[in-house]
Amino acid sequence: MRRVIIDTDTAGDDTIALLTALYHFKVEGVTITGGNVDFDQEVENALYTIQVFNPDYNVPVYKGHERPILSIGETVHRTVEDVHGKDGMGDSFFEKADQRPEDGHAVNFIIEKVKANPGEIEFLAIAPLTNIAMAIKKDPTIVKDIPHIYIMGGTNNALGNITAAAEYNFWVDPEAARIVLHAGIPITMVGWDMCTDYSVMNDTDHQEIAAIGTARSKFFMDINRVVMKFNKEVHKIDGTTHPDTLLVAIAANEELMIASNDYFVDIETKGELTRGYSLVDRNNRSEKSPNVRVCEGVDREKFRNTLIKVLSTNSY
Amino acid sequence: MRRVIIDTDTAGDDTIALLTALYHFKVEGVTITGGNVDFDQEVENALYTIQVFNPDYNVPVYKGHERPILSIGETVHRTVEDVHGKDGMGDSFFEKADQRPEDGHAVNFIIEKVKANPGEIEFLAIAPLTNIAMAIKKDPTIVKDIPHIYIMGGTNNALGNITAAAEYNFWVDPEAARIVLHAGIPITMVGWDMCTDYSVMNDTDHQEIAAIGTARSKFFMDINRVVMKFNKEVHKIDGTTHPDTLLVAIAANEELMIASNDYFVDIETKGELTRGYSLVDRNNRSEKSPNVRVCEGVDREKFRNTLIKVLSTNSY
Amino acid sequence: MRRVIIDTDTAGDDTIALLTALYHFKVEGVTITGGNVDFDQEVENALYTIQVFNPDYNVPVYKGHERPILSIGETVHRTVEDVHGKDGMGDSFFEKADQRPEDGHAVNFIIEKVKANPGEIEFLAIAPLTNIAMAIKKDPTIVKDIPHIYIMGGTNNALGNITAAAEYNFWVDPEAARIVLHAGIPITMVGWDMCTDYSVMNDTDHQEIAAIGTARSKFFMDINRVVMKFNKEVHKIDGTTHPDTLLVAIAANEELMIASNDYFVDIETKGELTRGYSLVDRNNRSEKSPNVRVCEGVDREKFRNTLIKVLSTNSY
Amino acid sequence: MRRVIIDTDTAGDDTIALLTALYHFKVEGVTITGGNVDFDQEVENALYTIQVFNPDYNVPVYKGHERPILSIGETVHRTVEDVHGKDGMGDSFFEKADQRPEDGHAVNFIIEKVKANPGEIEFLAIAPLTNIAMAIKKDPTIVKDIPHIYIMGGTNNALGNITAAAEYNFWVDPEAARIVLHAGIPITMVGWDMCTDYSVMNDTDHQEIAAIGTARSKFFMDINRVVMKFNKEVHKIDGTTHPDTLLVAIAANEELMIASNDYFVDIETKGELTRGYSLVDRNNRSEKSPNVRVCEGVDREKFRNTLIKVLSTNSY
Repeated sequence: MRRVIIDTDTAGDDTIALLTALYHFKVEGVTITGGNVDFDQEVENALYTIQVFNPDYNVPVYKGHERPILSIGETVHRTVEDVHGKDGMGDSFFEKADQRPEDGHAVNFIIEKVKANPGEIEFLAIAPLTNIAMAIKKDPTIVKDIPHIYIMGGTNNALGNITAAAEYNFWVDPEAARIVLHAGIPITMVGWDMCTDYSVMNDTDHQEIAAIGTARSKFFMDINRVVMKFNKEVHKIDGTTHPDTLLVAIAANEELMIASNDYFVDIETKGELTRGYSLVDRNNRSEKSPNVRVCEGVDREKFRNTLIKVLSTNSY
Repeated sequence: MRRVIIDTDTAGDDTIALLTALYHFKVEGVTITGGNVDFDQEVENALYTIQVFNPDYNVPVYKGHERPILSIGETVHRTVEDVHGKDGMGDSFFEKADQRPEDGHAVNFIIEKVKANPGEIEFLAIAPLTNIAMAIKKDPTIVKDIPHIYIMGGTNNALGNITAAAEYNFWVDPEAARIVLHAGIPITMVGWDMCTDYSVMNDTDHQEIAAIGTARSKFFMDINRVVMKFNKEVHKIDGTTHPDTLLVAIAANEELMIASNDYFVDIETKGELTRGYSLVDRNNRSEKSPNVRVCEGVDREKFRNTLIKVLSTNSY
Repeated sequence: MRRVIIDTDTAGDDTIALLTALYHFKVEGVTITGGNVDFDQEVENALYTIQVFNPDYNVPVYKGHERPILSIGETVHRTVEDVHGKDGMGDSFFEKADQRPEDGHAVNFIIEKVKANPGEIEFLAIAPLTNIAMAIKKDPTIVKDIPHIYIMGGTNNALGNITAAAEYNFWVDPEAARIVLHAGIPITMVGWDMCTDYSVMNDTDHQEIAAIGTARSKFFMDINRVVMKFNKEVHKIDGTTHPDTLLVAIAANEELMIASNDYFVDIETKGELTRGYSLVDRNNRSEKSPNVRVCEGVDREKFRNTLIKVLSTNSY
Repeated sequence: MRRVIIDTDTAGDDTIALLTALYHFKVEGVTITGGNVDFDQEVENALYTIQVFNPDYNVPVYKGHERPILSIGETVHRTVEDVHGKDGMGDSFFEKADQRPEDGHAVNFIIEKVKANPGEIEFLAIAPLTNIAMAIKKDPTIVKDIPHIYIMGGTNNALGNITAAAEYNFWVDPEAARIVLHAGIPITMVGWDMCTDYSVMNDTDHQEIAAIGTARSKFFMDINRVVMKFNKEVHKIDGTTHPDTLLVAIAANEELMIASNDYFVDIETKGELTRGYSLVDRNNRSEKSPNVRVCEGVDREKFRNTLIKVLSTNSY
């Protein structure tokens, strides 16, 4: 089984992605970054999700950076309770899991785990890239020891979600995204455009999932309540979106990715309107060398099957 | 017949757009802005194109701003002879037309013509928006007297042409674009995405056009030589692109535009990677009021027919 | 007598500078730029000041750009009635002068006057540089025909006035300042630091001026009422500041400038905190060629005498 | 004895500052940040300087961030061997000290030391602020446990050194400077202007120091060879500059600081010309609350005496 660290701002689809990661990989640790909702709530959401996966399971959860690299003083970045509910779990307000987070810092955990297992630990990055960027900055020697990072972030010359120009994860910490994308680590990026094109689960899908009847399928129904409404109202998308689960599903089985290309990708950090915009240099006007493999097409049916399978299983 | 001023950096498809404008509108004047190629060459190209339309015709041509608003000192903006040929006319190196440009400045002409005919003069803008922006800045009272500006520029959350982020006209003078888009004049924007989706004329189309046998069709074949090659190599587009002609055709007959919406549109002027990026706030995350009607779909067959008709006619 | 155009956002010390210019130069025209206070008020202030200088005098006043180059839509720049009074005249609320502004636009006037008198017309620039920049952009050929521009603006690695980083004239329209400074015209810059170091008129000076008893001295006392209070409260300067008069006095008699050096000077247009900051590259770390002669020392006594002399005279 | 951590990019005057710190404080650790010269050379310089102070002494030296927060991939910031010599020690090419750096990361050391001694550990910051900023970001709870940071950096509306606008330490990592200045920790800033006004040691001073004849005085002479030449040629300063020693001397004895004020201070991170510029809002135009005590005057004689005393002593 491939070994991964999953970095997540656990709320909404992060949870289903975490279930999917636990299903397909040996998850060495879950690291939490500030993003979707209140940081401590994200930590609880990750712990709870592990318990949903398997009440007997124990995967270490590490607290990382609560805020983007350049946030100063008391400034708090924009969280998105409107998308995922006040608790980031569709306003389910689950009780706390028994498992508690580890003592160490996520950045230390990342560096130590990678250095102890050179070439072994892949990353599933479904949050702002603060933790991973800070690990790279703190110990640049980890770069050569990370075989691959799968990143949910950005959009490929298409509409963003938090602004028309930008996708949320890159927008929250564009500087972190730049650091990671230019670090020299092999990267696969699955953008917001792939999510809206291939990952939407509509009312019919939801009925099917509800009918599964496992703890996981029930959990899926619960946490997706708010986002279903939000998508219909704001994005005119008739269903729930699963950017993070799509990322993990592709990482688990690259056959899901039926089109991809290597491009030079960079992140705008200076723009007034475009902070966090991901420049995917598809027509190579910059004449720079590719640094990212960008997913440009997904086998939707295979993805759907992956999701259904994860939700259909009980680990116990 | 509707009365227009057409503002153009005459090279490549600007010429066919100019033919189309002369066919459908009473063109009160042609104003030249620095853009595609050497400024004086652009002036000659406009004069020659008028002569191609009708050797007996005389439409005043005014020289305007040779360079973008913020260019300083000797700095020259990037011209695109690689796209349109050294002369901007497919390396045709036509002889000079007999008609010569007028003495006055394009900006003065614009202001005087509008003030003398309040509510009467529409604009066809197929170049960087320097001239029109400078006219608005010099005399802001023209704003209420301009009924409509049709603008070829930007791209609707899609791939740009001069960079992955930006379309050429907005990229050359993003500050001018901002000034015009926020002036309060009714605007229709037809972006580069519409051009690549609906205006491409492939080898078969070209054979049909060549067979027409008019002076205009021959002219079309001549000036499109270089761009055909460029598009195949750089943009992987199998044909010639007609952003400016599409704009004029839509202005002449709005039925060609089968989809459009009013959006808040703004232009990035500060970004490192995204200078000239057009934010089309399709999901209204900025919560700002619409200022632009954005074309989102074209009846390609009607457009093609419009083009063929213009090229099939001899005015004399 | 040397011939000049004086460009002014007439309020406060602009008026005394205008008196000084009328005294020392043949003023071919006064051009008004948006700046200190309401634009139409500025126009009236210029007209009234000319009448104060000599009720029989008539110097053409031209209205120019009301707002900075990049202001968009209805956006109005920050005016400074707190410094100069609601009318920009120390809350004197003078009656309107008989003379009315000319019909033409300041930019047209500048271009035509320069082109008709190549090498003859010097500029006294004591406002945001919008008009002069727009004239240069509209007709770049005037550059070689302007022998010198004296500019009140910027600060030489010292404290600004409108922000800690920037002086007001450059801050209002930094893009205009960049255009003018890089145009290739010989320039003398007298910054805000020279003003605070050498031009302050304290209570004793004011008593002496009040005692002169001319119309001009009375005018001086009137228009300086508000700024005296403002300076004491905000800038901790114990007197009135005369940046514009200092500029004109130096232009009239360069002996007043006892220290100066040629430096590369540029203007920050992109900063978050430093918009309008004037980089005076005194230690030449940029290794760029000088484009501006920067005043670095003034004979305060000679300046004071110049001022007193202008105020002591009646032209009639 | 007050307990401090000194953060240094050890080269040139950093070494004399380190001697001064070792003399006046209990130095709990020396943390190294990328800055003046090659990072590993800086580490050696710190170790060698400790040995110069006292061959029997042992103060732990921790390696920290080699590059600024936002440097990406292989990008290296601009080092200044032209100022301090190839080795940062006046081209002295000393042999390596016996003491070796510690294993842990400077950021971990900072956090652990502060958390173990809340309210006890002051900081002497004489380098780009990368390490301290990253410690604050990694564990924001240290903020309340740090009683004071003395910072050599910035300039108070005066000429910079690396550019006309900016001082080197803030210029190398302006984002780090912003993070530290806005963290909420009590800060004293001693800028480059204080250094040029009060810390210069001229040829006469150097002769006196040479005559002292201690190991430390000989070391002072050695490491200042290159900077003496550089200052005369580039900065027109007739002597060696001691910004870091001045900072440490003031921290050790605040009586040296004969003038200071609390101001709002911020750092420009977005400007084209002004990256790293320190806005010291002396006239409070921003109307923001003070966050920094800024040194505005020094008793030069007391400073000189402090320096002479440190150099006159042998610890063994």
